[in-house]
Amino acid sequence: MFAIGMDVGGTNLAAGLVNDKGEILQKLEKPTIAFRAPEVVMDDMADMVRSLAEAAGGLSEVSSAGFGLPGVVDMKRGVLVFADNLGWQHIDIVTQMHERLGLPVFAGNDANVAALAETKAGAGAGVNNSVMLTLGTGLGGGIIIEGKIYTGAHYVGGEIGHQIIEVNGRLCNCGVRGCFERYASATALIMAGRHALAENPNGAIGRAAGGSAEAVTARMVVDLAKSGDRQASAIWEEYLHYLCSGMVSLVNLFDPEVFIIGGGVSSAGDFLLTPLRERLPKMVSFRDAPQARIELATLGNDAGIIGAAMLGLYT
Amino acid sequence: MFAIGMDVGGTNLAAGLVNDKGEILQKLEKPTIAFRAPEVVMDDMADMVRSLAEAAGGLSEVSSAGFGLPGVVDMKRGVLVFADNLGWQHIDIVTQMHERLGLPVFAGNDANVAALAETKAGAGAGVNNSVMLTLGTGLGGGIIIEGKIYTGAHYVGGEIGHQIIEVNGRLCNCGVRGCFERYASATALIMAGRHALAENPNGAIGRAAGGSAEAVTARMVVDLAKSGDRQASAIWEEYLHYLCSGMVSLVNLFDPEVFIIGGGVSSAGDFLLTPLRERLPKMVSFRDAPQARIELATLGNDAGIIGAAMLGLYT
Repeated sequence: MFAIGMDVGGTNLAAGLVNDKGEILQKLEKPTIAFRAPEVVMDDMADMVRSLAEAAGGLSEVSSAGFGLPGVVDMKRGVLVFADNLGWQHIDIVTQMHERLGLPVFAGNDANVAALAETKAGAGAGVNNSVMLTLGTGLGGGIIIEGKIYTGAHYVGGEIGHQIIEVNGRLCNCGVRGCFERYASATALIMAGRHALAENPNGAIGRAAGGSAEAVTARMVVDLAKSGDRQASAIWEEYLHYLCSGMVSLVNLFDPEVFIIGGGVSSAGDFLLTPLRERLPKMVSFRDAPQARIELATLGNDAGIIGAAMLGLYT
Repeated sequence: MFAIGMDVGGTNLAAGLVNDKGEILQKLEKPTIAFRAPEVVMDDMADMVRSLAEAAGGLSEVSSAGFGLPGVVDMKRGVLVFADNLGWQHIDIVTQMHERLGLPVFAGNDANVAALAETKAGAGAGVNNSVMLTLGTGLGGGIIIEGKIYTGAHYVGGEIGHQIIEVNGRLCNCGVRGCFERYASATALIMAGRHALAENPNGAIGRAAGGSAEAVTARMVVDLAKSGDRQASAIWEEYLHYLCSGMVSLVNLFDPEVFIIGGGVSSAGDFLLTPLRERLPKMVSFRDAPQARIELATLGNDAGIIGAAMLGLYT
């Protein structure tokens, strides 16, 4: 049997026909054209599922369809509570898609389904408890407990980026000060890079960015740190310390088998992994206990599709 | 049927015969005399279980015996990994007590079983997901997920007091800086009270403590804050802010149905609860979602016995 998974983004709808090994056999992409009436977008989504099902020999060959959505999802009732990027609120997406498709339908938060995919078919394959950190514009991720997505009592848990690691610290988009996201996302590296450029326009960061704060990227900072530039190295060092600190809390609270690191910053590879693997075990409360592995995500952007397709298996 | 639960402390062994409503029908207490050979202490523990069983009509009337232990417990294998207060390491307590008693035997961490008791038969009765915070000398507690104690992959999760809320902050006993425990335990109030006394020996705190730093208690600081003393109020205000901040992280990560607050500081009652209930919903990431209730623990010291007795039901 096959399942169909769809990553519903603010920009694109990306769907895939997925086999029971979590491999994508065929992919389909279409612009979302967000802020249309949800019913119209859902019609498009149903068309995409049907097209992919044809490739599998028809809807009868498909065990379920799953949707990863960019917002808060009440997984039990199958309701998208809200998704700012889509402009949607209180959409009973599971019922509505089931009416269109006649298939078992599942829905989850996009970052959470990506964590599920990485845990089942990616970096964490074989593991039951994992925490995924997506170090991108924000700091997202997901928590897998006993092989399932954990979202808590009101579907707002698992917001790893919004643990407070610095009381009265940097102001977060969520309105609170000191969130992990402000210190350990790719954005945090960019902000630190801009600050360095302002302080020393003729430094390596300033030169790489052509003197323009807007041109500073996280990759630029990481690459200069790799090359040994003093300013970039200091930024990277501070970044690692904050990232480690947030991960210490996650160990002391969740004690996962594995951390899976994805998102833009994870492209730093061993330059990121090696210090994390070295430092984290020295900072957790129980240093004699077996330690969580730390791995890079392996599925890239496909994780959203694969995880959505897996919802029917692990819900 | 009855179950027997025992709170194994460094000072006392406290056991109880517990009915299926989580009520203690009979209690027994004995000094632990820690640092004796574990086998000798376990003989004492077995004697206590047998005595209590007699009151129930014999061991055949007892469905299981559970032990709450002051250390890291591998609940699946039934092994106490270590307990500093007892001087024990790698004790296969479940096997050993089963050999002595012939009953189904269970073991868990003492703070975790107290959280289980409060969730099932105390402040959280009827709830499936809860976080208990014990605001005492340290900041302990436990996490209940889907009605069971959550300890993670290596039995070292649920260490609520060791989330980092202030990177590079106050040094914790665990060797790391900035742990929640350093800011939100009763000890944190005492330390702040001593600091205030040193700064202003003639202030209300100084007078209440007779000028002696050693005499400062958390209760003293709370009572003076209640009475409106400026110095004590400032300490209490800061304490609440730190406590709230740690709880924000716990909402954003675990999203519990209820927080249960125990330990010495919880005797402040509404003076503690009212500001927490007011502020927490304004600080969490999803302020429109249903919010966790915040309640005071109701079982007091009995929670350890009751929770240990419940291990047979909820493991």
